[in-house]
Amino acid sequence: MSKVRVHISTSIDGYVAGPNQSDENPLGEGGEELHDWLVQLKSWREHAGMEGGEVNVSSAVFDEEIANVGAEIMGRGKFGPAARGPWGDDPWRGWWAEDPPFHKPVFVLTHHEREPLTLSDTTFTFVTDGIQSALARARGAAGDKDVFIGGGANVINQYLAAGLVDELELHVVPILLRGGERLFAGVGPDLKLEEIRVVEAPGVAHLKYRVVK
Amino acid sequence: MSKVRVHISTSIDGYVAGPNQSDENPLGEGGEELHDWLVQLKSWREHAGMEGGEVNVSSAVFDEEIANVGAEIMGRGKFGPAARGPWGDDPWRGWWAEDPPFHKPVFVLTHHEREPLTLSDTTFTFVTDGIQSALARARGAAGDKDVFIGGGANVINQYLAAGLVDELELHVVPILLRGGERLFAGVGPDLKLEEIRVVEAPGVAHLKYRVVK
Repeated sequence: MSKVRVHISTSIDGYVAGPNQSDENPLGEGGEELHDWLVQLKSWREHAGMEGGEVNVSSAVFDEEIANVGAEIMGRGKFGPAARGPWGDDPWRGWWAEDPPFHKPVFVLTHHEREPLTLSDTTFTFVTDGIQSALARARGAAGDKDVFIGGGANVINQYLAAGLVDELELHVVPILLRGGERLFAGVGPDLKLEEIRVVEAPGVAHLKYRVVK
Repeated sequence: MSKVRVHISTSIDGYVAGPNQSDENPLGEGGEELHDWLVQLKSWREHAGMEGGEVNVSSAVFDEEIANVGAEIMGRGKFGPAARGPWGDDPWRGWWAEDPPFHKPVFVLTHHEREPLTLSDTTFTFVTDGIQSALARARGAAGDKDVFIGGGANVINQYLAAGLVDELELHVVPILLRGGERLFAGVGPDLKLEEIRVVEAPGVAHLKYRVVK
């Protein structure tokens, strides 16, 4: 059965991006450190077309995270820099140059219409009619595979609040960001979670939950 | 070497007490659920003078938590209800009736002077000259045992911000409190944490960190 899944790195004080996000600091001040555990993994580096890296307990967690994903949904803030408004004549083509690491259909939530953009084997489709519509289209594209809600926090919180997420994994990193984007802002009290598993790994704790429907 | 330790249950959205704390709801709305994993443990119940309970993975975590503790520091809000001001002629004697479950010296941070109170084998000493003084007195009472910072969030955050804590354990419970007392409020950026261990247990994840000095 196809699932809607969230997997996201969070600081120990509950932020998934640091304060003062900008073009230079897309994840906010200190936010890059949220992914230190990830970018050193051999399997992540292979997935992103990079060499080297190590294998540790987190490798299996990451492999599980990316397995069986048929489509991703992201906010405009994950696709591009903080500037908003119409896309313009020479629109932003994503952070990832000509070979994005998705290799699957990506649906970008935005208030401004835009034609789809294909880069290598990833097609970005821009959805202007809300999270339900984006999910329906992502499900259609994913077939019997899962849909990954890629962030940022605002998009994840909207899907959590609407009761549309099936599984939620937090990668808890022992840093304090002290501000920025908070996971769970505006979510609840209807969201009921059940612990699936907890994994100790170097520099990170992986906490996975099922949403009880 | 004697350590200063914090062990506290937190909701998945980062609150250690729920909103609207009151005499009826000392832990705020929904806050009691933070301790569901704990109060069902045989070892906790024995410690509190109660019968029954179960043994599971959390039992060893709790046994480790209470082992080798020589003194506890708590805020007035953990000792008594939200009412503040002078203690009065017939002062509050704690939530725990005549046999408190501490069995060791307890130092209560308050702005109002009061004579020590002894109930069974627990003596509560009221400290009005701040967290450093309370810690010095607790260390003196604990000898070569550890000092436990018992909460609430405000007291823990003060000790974390002052760099006085050696170990911090979070018992992460998959509930959303959506408001209340936030751990880490006002703490950082100097606090550096290093993961010691992560334990999966029924309905809770135990995440333990060392403070890097």
